[in-house]
Amino acid sequence: MFRSNTCGELRLSDAGKDVTLAGWVQRTRKMGGMTFVDVRDRYGITQVVFNNDTDAALCDAANKLGREYVVQVKGRVAERASKNPNLPTGDIEIIASELSVLNPSEVPPFTIEDNTDGGDELRMKYRYLDLRRSAVRRNLELRHRMTMEVRRYLDSKGFLEIETPMLVGSTPEGARDFVVPSRMNQGQFYALPQSPQTLKQLLMVSGMDRYFQIVKCFRDEDLRADRQPEFTQIDCEMSYVEQDDIINLFEGMAKHLFKELRGVELKEPFLRMPWSEAMRLYGSDKPDLRFGMTFVELMDVLKGHGFSVFDNAAYIGGICAKGAASYTRKQLDQLTDFVKRPQIGAKGMVYARVEADGSVKSSVDKFYTQETLQRLKEAMNAEPGDLILILSGDDAMKTRKQLCELRLEMGNRLGLRDKDKFACLWVVDFPMFEWSDEEQRLMAMHHPFTHPKDEDIPLLDTDPAAVRADAYDMVVNGVEVGGGSIRIHDSKLQAKMFEILGFTPEKAQEQFGFLMNAFKFGAPPHGGLAYGLDRWVSLFAGLDSIRDCIAFPKNNSGRDVMLDAPAPLDQKQLDELSLAVVAEEKE
Amino acid sequence: MFRSNTCGELRLSDAGKDVTLAGWVQRTRKMGGMTFVDVRDRYGITQVVFNNDTDAALCDAANKLGREYVVQVKGRVAERASKNPNLPTGDIEIIASELSVLNPSEVPPFTIEDNTDGGDELRMKYRYLDLRRSAVRRNLELRHRMTMEVRRYLDSKGFLEIETPMLVGSTPEGARDFVVPSRMNQGQFYALPQSPQTLKQLLMVSGMDRYFQIVKCFRDEDLRADRQPEFTQIDCEMSYVEQDDIINLFEGMAKHLFKELRGVELKEPFLRMPWSEAMRLYGSDKPDLRFGMTFVELMDVLKGHGFSVFDNAAYIGGICAKGAASYTRKQLDQLTDFVKRPQIGAKGMVYARVEADGSVKSSVDKFYTQETLQRLKEAMNAEPGDLILILSGDDAMKTRKQLCELRLEMGNRLGLRDKDKFACLWVVDFPMFEWSDEEQRLMAMHHPFTHPKDEDIPLLDTDPAAVRADAYDMVVNGVEVGGGSIRIHDSKLQAKMFEILGFTPEKAQEQFGFLMNAFKFGAPPHGGLAYGLDRWVSLFAGLDSIRDCIAFPKNNSGRDVMLDAPAPLDQKQLDELSLAVVAEEKE
Repeated sequence: MFRSNTCGELRLSDAGKDVTLAGWVQRTRKMGGMTFVDVRDRYGITQVVFNNDTDAALCDAANKLGREYVVQVKGRVAERASKNPNLPTGDIEIIASELSVLNPSEVPPFTIEDNTDGGDELRMKYRYLDLRRSAVRRNLELRHRMTMEVRRYLDSKGFLEIETPMLVGSTPEGARDFVVPSRMNQGQFYALPQSPQTLKQLLMVSGMDRYFQIVKCFRDEDLRADRQPEFTQIDCEMSYVEQDDIINLFEGMAKHLFKELRGVELKEPFLRMPWSEAMRLYGSDKPDLRFGMTFVELMDVLKGHGFSVFDNAAYIGGICAKGAASYTRKQLDQLTDFVKRPQIGAKGMVYARVEADGSVKSSVDKFYTQETLQRLKEAMNAEPGDLILILSGDDAMKTRKQLCELRLEMGNRLGLRDKDKFACLWVVDFPMFEWSDEEQRLMAMHHPFTHPKDEDIPLLDTDPAAVRADAYDMVVNGVEVGGGSIRIHDSKLQAKMFEILGFTPEKAQEQFGFLMNAFKFGAPPHGGLAYGLDRWVSLFAGLDSIRDCIAFPKNNSGRDVMLDAPAPLDQKQLDELSLAVVAEEKE
Repeated sequence: MFRSNTCGELRLSDAGKDVTLAGWVQRTRKMGGMTFVDVRDRYGITQVVFNNDTDAALCDAANKLGREYVVQVKGRVAERASKNPNLPTGDIEIIASELSVLNPSEVPPFTIEDNTDGGDELRMKYRYLDLRRSAVRRNLELRHRMTMEVRRYLDSKGFLEIETPMLVGSTPEGARDFVVPSRMNQGQFYALPQSPQTLKQLLMVSGMDRYFQIVKCFRDEDLRADRQPEFTQIDCEMSYVEQDDIINLFEGMAKHLFKELRGVELKEPFLRMPWSEAMRLYGSDKPDLRFGMTFVELMDVLKGHGFSVFDNAAYIGGICAKGAASYTRKQLDQLTDFVKRPQIGAKGMVYARVEADGSVKSSVDKFYTQETLQRLKEAMNAEPGDLILILSGDDAMKTRKQLCELRLEMGNRLGLRDKDKFACLWVVDFPMFEWSDEEQRLMAMHHPFTHPKDEDIPLLDTDPAAVRADAYDMVVNGVEVGGGSIRIHDSKLQAKMFEILGFTPEKAQEQFGFLMNAFKFGAPPHGGLAYGLDRWVSLFAGLDSIRDCIAFPKNNSGRDVMLDAPAPLDQKQLDELSLAVVAEEKE
């Protein structure tokens, strides 16, 4: 052992002990004849003192230490003259008697501090130095504690963690697969799993009853800000259950995690909101319930008064921002610009202020009488000092999504989205299908194995677009942290589902034959869900991006800039795989 | 909920309760007017009784049930007339009042029993049915408990589980990589990790101090009987430690696992045997210590008596098989055939029996006097009734390995390799390098990051082949369950190591530059080890193959016959990846 104690554990009660510490030099300070060295490890920082009067050679060695040198120090624990209340070890220091440099360090390219001077690219290239910063390390510690607690909870509920293979078959339905050429089976490829969905269903067929796995999944998609080509899923499945059983058990898990990891006791049952209501009131299937500002539909109030924008609209909706009537013209213009950004795509925004005397001043006063505006105020439940913001459009769903963005923006501006407050709910009764303009057919909203609601099964033949599913998402603070469904366990119903989704029986057999065949041998009723671990950890950690709760993330081009991967292969490797790289044709 | 209880939990104390069970029909028996149905789930089997006199229609429905139908049964718990002491639920039965078929089943292709009639191939194709057999399911349950205990133990010792990426860079040193073409970086490939070796070392550089991960690894090797292209590793690394610290901590973990999973208390410290001694006494770096039969070198005794085979040998060694003097000529011929098989490759075998009167009869009596044979007896510490088996050859190491195989075979024949007995040891002081005839250079015996023993470092310049490493393997019952080493943390020593291994500085920089650069910024002393989870679980489970402790294993051609993977890709997918499959040239 290179140390008797870590740099985080010595206290006043240890005073007088002879100890050995090892760690990194955080900083050195010379004050008079004394040199103070802060030594850091994962567990904390301890101050070490070298006295020039006592041992000039030793003090000289300490003065030569550079930032991030790896040192071993022997000495005696002593009470500090000037204590540091911000440090758990701040009551003591080590009076050094020996010093060894275990490894010197070049000057790091950025400072190892919570607020570093390193930019994103530099931090990623030297990620092993970035991870020394306690702000980043704490996220990985939280991630570890979270997976420990998840496993402890599920184990206590009789779940078995079962590893499913990483080298599986490609399933063209869904996102794009990463593939792996097989050397032993020339011209053939494995795929890396987008999720263990079909395999966990097979485990239910095999009677495993309660399965979970914390598992890497892969999707070869064009990366947006908060996506990684490989991500980690908490994947769960249960047999002989209905939707309520699953929701209750995993709500219990969520409450357990909030308590253990954040010290937050969520006592009330989570709200269960039908998808249609979430869309109507929040324009989102993952509403942020930390604040109200629910949508009010205003067609009755504002249509037919000669304002052609509203008169021609398929949807008019408003939100009421409490106390924001004082917004300046400039602030309102910013909001208008915000909703008109191409990512949001609204044509414009109408606003109305409720004045101190109760009168309403709007941006469309010339079309509306004060009487109508008073009816607007009433409909919005607005009071003096409130600001009403209104969007309209010819596509109700699109307009609701625009209004959702405006609501979230107002939530941010009014400080209503506190990262230390948690609002959890289940969104339920999702539509079974959604129409794809691109594919010109119905697509499964969750996946093709989702069970329709029993009462909606007759609609499969007459009006499939109206069918709702036994599907549910868990939403926290406007983030979908997980979701799942009851699965189809009847091979005939599964075949019908594939038919509606446009599969020929042959194609369905080719792609999912192994699952449909398995269902012929006694598949139990089953269902499950999956959580996105990266997203959930970053929520607990209060991060804006998932990247800093991942040890070695990839950038937006899917590159690991530290390892410099991916990279070209040797010709020999390509030959062994019977592969050739075909240069892209330039146009 | 489809059930009030599982099929494994009801006891006599539950008699009189109304319950609902759900599960699979294991078997049905008609006896007089009664029908008995055994209903099975993961937790056990419960007998359900249908009485034709009470409810003929219900009994009729029960008679129509087929094997593996999924049923739900309501009824009352009653004491059984004829109890089954072999079943935890054997004291009770359920008097059925309702029966629903949740899902029928086709007749399964093999019986779902501990001793099934299904061959290997059929079982793998219908693995989801094979997993219903409790003999197989129990292995997965054991695997789950093992990983839970490993995590619990390491968490209690301050280890953090940190996920390292699956899409990394290819490292030509070592085995062959599986690669993953990148669509976004045309012509470039990721590799799947053979182990997180370099990444966990970077985590030590980043100050994580104690890391572990239970993680999938990949090797594209030609598959032998007990290898899988993807396998699971318990991967660990620690900072500021010496070899003893690591061995002590992980010996503690092994003892914890033996106690929790097998109820075996291993009280003694594990033996630590230098590699050279393991080779000298057992001809193996993973000796099976469940029995003795250690090698005795017989050069002094048997050389120079005119038997040219021995006179020309570079090594003569024997083992003493207690009580096997009664072996017949036929048995001895079988043993000779055994060692002459091409996989073992001995030229022949000499034997000597110690008779009841103490005299020795050997197969080479014409070359040796009884006096010499008595000296042989003495050297072998043999007694009346013992059988001495002797091999010789012109390559000492090869001959020892042949004798090792003979020793293990004799252990099997004499019943000395009890699967319920566990003999654990550490093999230490491995050679740093081994000579590769194929590559005509020294290769790293463990890997290029292994630290040489401090006292052997001067030999790096003068006699590298003699250098021993701070490397250690944990061996249980002749199986290497894990191994590791202290790593080099000094970039200059690492550079020298690459030089000895025949890397130019440029090539070393190209392949491992990221690691050597990291070492310039304050790498702490560190080391670790990795266990093969599949192998360790199969050892605890008493299995001969790792396959049955893996839910969905691949066959010897690397195929998943259930999923029918790998498979050809669509041309569209190949185009997106800028790849073409090149037909192999026929010769």
